[in-house]
Amino acid sequence: MATKLTDLSKLCVHTLTTKPWDLRECVENYNAAGIQGITIWRNVLENQNLIDAKKLFDDHNMEVVSIARGGFFPSIEKSIRNKAIDDNLLAIEQAAAVGAPVIVLVCGADGKQSLEKSREQIKEGIIKILPEAKAAGVKLAIEPLHPMYAGDRSAINTMAQANDLAEEINSDFVGVAVDVYHLWWDDNLQQEIMRCGKNDNLFAFHVCDWNVPTTDFLNDRGLMGDGCINVPQIRSWVEKAGFKGYNEVEIFSDKYWAMNQIEYLEKIKNAYLNCT
Amino acid sequence: MATKLTDLSKLCVHTLTTKPWDLRECVENYNAAGIQGITIWRNVLENQNLIDAKKLFDDHNMEVVSIARGGFFPSIEKSIRNKAIDDNLLAIEQAAAVGAPVIVLVCGADGKQSLEKSREQIKEGIIKILPEAKAAGVKLAIEPLHPMYAGDRSAINTMAQANDLAEEINSDFVGVAVDVYHLWWDDNLQQEIMRCGKNDNLFAFHVCDWNVPTTDFLNDRGLMGDGCINVPQIRSWVEKAGFKGYNEVEIFSDKYWAMNQIEYLEKIKNAYLNCT
Repeated sequence: MATKLTDLSKLCVHTLTTKPWDLRECVENYNAAGIQGITIWRNVLENQNLIDAKKLFDDHNMEVVSIARGGFFPSIEKSIRNKAIDDNLLAIEQAAAVGAPVIVLVCGADGKQSLEKSREQIKEGIIKILPEAKAAGVKLAIEPLHPMYAGDRSAINTMAQANDLAEEINSDFVGVAVDVYHLWWDDNLQQEIMRCGKNDNLFAFHVCDWNVPTTDFLNDRGLMGDGCINVPQIRSWVEKAGFKGYNEVEIFSDKYWAMNQIEYLEKIKNAYLNCT
Repeated sequence: MATKLTDLSKLCVHTLTTKPWDLRECVENYNAAGIQGITIWRNVLENQNLIDAKKLFDDHNMEVVSIARGGFFPSIEKSIRNKAIDDNLLAIEQAAAVGAPVIVLVCGADGKQSLEKSREQIKEGIIKILPEAKAAGVKLAIEPLHPMYAGDRSAINTMAQANDLAEEINSDFVGVAVDVYHLWWDDNLQQEIMRCGKNDNLFAFHVCDWNVPTTDFLNDRGLMGDGCINVPQIRSWVEKAGFKGYNEVEIFSDKYWAMNQIEYLEKIKNAYLNCT
């Protein structure tokens, strides 16, 4: 088992976890709650001056852990694939501007073609943006998504596939983001996390829980302890694999978004210390 | 690629596919449509005299392909596990009475315990009912379910796990049901189907499609051709693995249940001949 978490020093919260808040509200409230890590969803950067945003983080001693999200490379339409490249290059610029060391890639899938074809296009897309990522000092984390998203959100659905892809591309700037929500069911998870760490490819660790029953494909994630994922066990594997980064709380939840977000942040801290 | 299906001789329809119909309506309408295979969901057997039901099938030259469903073995509560055994024994009686050679097992899961523990209880449950299944001449088909059901419906989520379990139990009366809906995303699917056939464990083949996007966890399945699954490719693997049984159309769909079911049955036949 994992050692118990006794303080908030490794807690990072995704801005989308507290979706009702804008960027300033996230930073000020996280800071007031004693949280030092933040992952920025790009929606909160829209219409923001990035120099001001960087100053906001610095003024609050907030460490930007990553930018979510790049990716969505595959399409049967070349013009859409090209647009995706442009959008990923923009994400790299944004990450560099706000000091984010990592971009999380939701790789994408197009149900009009095979998963194999989508995977080829994902690889091509990552290779295409890699020079700019390197030049900007920004790493790319392939996030395998739950197989229930294989039709439209990601053709990379297991740690094994993410490891394969990262190892094929074989760059210090390409690795993997482990999210318990997407991967908890996989009986190869432990060995693939070890493989990932051994290859220095373990770039990020995301936590939440799987509600039983789950009622929505996107916005019914649970807070750690709400559901059936053994989060401490998976954290122990990630740590054994050498990961020393933040534990990122990434929860999309209509239920929690409807709460008072200050009270929700206290629940998150509590769940982090007791069920993560 | 699979050879094209040119007639309905291998078409089986699950009674739940045409949920608005009772047992008699299913049998009469399938028969009138030229369909000879039927899989009986146990809800339509409630309050039925099974001798009458058997006569209904015989009078319409309807071949009962399987009974759906047994299973749901795991629970942290022993009393619930015992009730599940009783229910599975009843399913075996029902299958024997109506001449069904196979019971499909939706194995179950209890989110309050680990997947490993649920898998142990599934194995125990199958071993417990196996003598009665053998005595009745009824085979048990383990159906791996999509990982999105791992929290509450099945701790068996891949063909590899189903193959492992069937091979561990090692009985002519225990095998696997392949359902494209649950398994299409798995890049080990082809090799695991071959393994299954090689071990004479391939007992059933279910078809439908994965809608993009999918909006409901249970009742938004597509008709073959509606979604992103390459059904003919998977059928070709199943046939290459030696399977000679029916192609069973199992679709839970609020959308199609709202249609005129006679017209829907024509759509099913069309999708069967052109997209399966």
